[in-house]
Amino acid sequence: MTKPIIVQKFGGSSVANIDRIKAVAQRVLETKTKKNNIVVVVSALGDTTDELEELAMKLTPQPPEREMDMLMSTGEQISCALLAIAIKALGHEAISFTGGQVGIRTDKSHTKAQIETIDAQRIRQALSENKIVIVAGFQGINSDNDITTLGRGGSDLTAVALAITLGAKVCEIFTDVKGIYTADPRIVEDAQKIQNISYDEMLEMASLGAQVMQARSIEVAKRFNIPIHVRSSFAKEEGTMITQNSSKLEQISVSGITSNKKEAKVTICAVPDKPGVAAHIFTEISKVGVSVDTIVQNVSHTRHTDISFTVPRSDLNKTLKAAEQIAQKLHAREVLQDNKIARVSIVGSEMRSRHGIAAQMFQTLAENKINIEMITTSEISISCIIHEKNTDKAVKALHKIFSLKD
Amino acid sequence: MTKPIIVQKFGGSSVANIDRIKAVAQRVLETKTKKNNIVVVVSALGDTTDELEELAMKLTPQPPEREMDMLMSTGEQISCALLAIAIKALGHEAISFTGGQVGIRTDKSHTKAQIETIDAQRIRQALSENKIVIVAGFQGINSDNDITTLGRGGSDLTAVALAITLGAKVCEIFTDVKGIYTADPRIVEDAQKIQNISYDEMLEMASLGAQVMQARSIEVAKRFNIPIHVRSSFAKEEGTMITQNSSKLEQISVSGITSNKKEAKVTICAVPDKPGVAAHIFTEISKVGVSVDTIVQNVSHTRHTDISFTVPRSDLNKTLKAAEQIAQKLHAREVLQDNKIARVSIVGSEMRSRHGIAAQMFQTLAENKINIEMITTSEISISCIIHEKNTDKAVKALHKIFSLKD
Repeated sequence: MTKPIIVQKFGGSSVANIDRIKAVAQRVLETKTKKNNIVVVVSALGDTTDELEELAMKLTPQPPEREMDMLMSTGEQISCALLAIAIKALGHEAISFTGGQVGIRTDKSHTKAQIETIDAQRIRQALSENKIVIVAGFQGINSDNDITTLGRGGSDLTAVALAITLGAKVCEIFTDVKGIYTADPRIVEDAQKIQNISYDEMLEMASLGAQVMQARSIEVAKRFNIPIHVRSSFAKEEGTMITQNSSKLEQISVSGITSNKKEAKVTICAVPDKPGVAAHIFTEISKVGVSVDTIVQNVSHTRHTDISFTVPRSDLNKTLKAAEQIAQKLHAREVLQDNKIARVSIVGSEMRSRHGIAAQMFQTLAENKINIEMITTSEISISCIIHEKNTDKAVKALHKIFSLKD
Repeated sequence: MTKPIIVQKFGGSSVANIDRIKAVAQRVLETKTKKNNIVVVVSALGDTTDELEELAMKLTPQPPEREMDMLMSTGEQISCALLAIAIKALGHEAISFTGGQVGIRTDKSHTKAQIETIDAQRIRQALSENKIVIVAGFQGINSDNDITTLGRGGSDLTAVALAITLGAKVCEIFTDVKGIYTADPRIVEDAQKIQNISYDEMLEMASLGAQVMQARSIEVAKRFNIPIHVRSSFAKEEGTMITQNSSKLEQISVSGITSNKKEAKVTICAVPDKPGVAAHIFTEISKVGVSVDTIVQNVSHTRHTDISFTVPRSDLNKTLKAAEQIAQKLHAREVLQDNKIARVSIVGSEMRSRHGIAAQMFQTLAENKINIEMITTSEISISCIIHEKNTDKAVKALHKIFSLKD
């Protein structure tokens, strides 16, 4: 009979220095019993990844991606070796592995590789010898035996993928916050930790601004129905469980409020209001490699209309250049921009089926004299684009109105 | 027709920072022509190895060796990736490999593994694509696919072993000195750089104190007759060629003077002068893991004799403890110690067959009022153990008498 397996992932801040590595070793041993097996995934120590990247950038602004993976993957290799040493120093058997050694096979897209298969043979062997297994996160190897890395949030993905392969009971993500909150605790003082949340709600919150986990890992966990437990490295209490269904069920609809200030708004004014114009605009924008988020086309009272859309702020210049060309071609009047916007969203299951939630959101913003510039909705979220300066006020007001504190 | 291959090895001080890595990239490109192929072996950046070791030591004084290899091997992985980036930034194709990726297979002795085989398939492939190949020194993998390291001087060994496997024309060892000198230039002002030296002489000089290359790599180069060129990373001039025969042939016998202060002397006084006593003593000493170097047993005029020997200073305490027990058992009178000794040696081919060289050495030391405490000779060297304080005086006098300056 095989013992239940727990996968634990510790992020860079959890292993930032020797004392924290010791604390993580202690923490891992507190979880380990005779009746379970532990697989630990670690990120690079603190700022190692940034420091290595900086070294490469001093050589050339665009270092070759294969060599960057060779370089960056050392960060996780260092932390997994150190954690194995720390656990053995506390008296328990432990063994560290690189992504390649545990057979994490990826495609050939260096710096953003996708995991194809995992042959966890060496992990199973080590677990059967009652060893605690430590795996370097963020990395794999491709069919040329070259080292690849998985891109941002890659260690979370390693943890979730290993949990799936090993049939783990749970994948615990240890981080520097205590879990997922109903709103950013730095904005809303009485934001509450959410005990249970569904994959879909979590995905929505992640893509709308909650930064605890990357959407990618949550999607994979959802597909294979692996429970994720987001919790603090520095506190014993339980964090947030992410599962298929939140236990709240139909109790309340709004699970959390998110906000982000990462977008900019572009408006092409007075374009001809005829079929194919929108298609033309967004084909041209996508050609310059920019992903557009919210799009609003105002109701047209004349033969012309305004089309607004948001893009990542970092892509604003590129977008404006393309938009000017489009405007010229379409004989549009002008192109306007605004990079002082924020997106405020409410997230919850079956939100669209609940009448009045959207209205209540708009009403609340209005009562707080916050102008809504754009609105978009999904199955489980409603977002408003507002002026950046009103972000905190909006989040606080929405948090209060939807009674997100216990 | 295959192009001639040059293997170049750059040590830690040659790649200590980004500017030096750029300089190494430049240097490699100056060697590269359309008619040759270059394989570069690099050590870890500057003090990286020490820094990583220090981190591990903060966790436990005796970290497990497998995990240490996992940890330490990252140093060379970082420098080979950075050098590949630097070379590509200068416009030439380059590719970096770990020891494992180029198939450097070792035994399972972690932290001091021996190379068993090298399957340089990936190197040959990359060279055929006109890429400059950069290999992480000091490391390999064993049959479990675990990372191993080769111990002190390991990167030199990687370079020599690759030169052998690839049938290279020469193995260039770039270092922070200009070559092998007739004596330590810090002691003897007019010490001369040796142009050519034989493997045997170099081996003798290395084991007697010259610290430029580890004896191990020279032995391997000798066995496969790979020419080694020891030269400076920071100067263009030629360094010292180490080959089967030095071109000097019979011209002069003494190639160089070496000295070291790493030994201590132990004397067990008045042990019974009968068969089996020496065997007993040195069996017991070897049991505590100490390697004894020079042994002198004085001619005995009574039924008792004194036995003196030298051991590494770092092993002195361990040795004294064992010696006291031996002395008690053999009813010897006492154990004496002296850790203020130095070994001064003259090295040259066929030295023993040259009459008068030894006598000249002893005479020179006597004229300088330097007492000789022990003497040992080999086929190509004569060493005297003297008081430490006389080291520099002895080296200078011997350098002069044997006319080692041009």
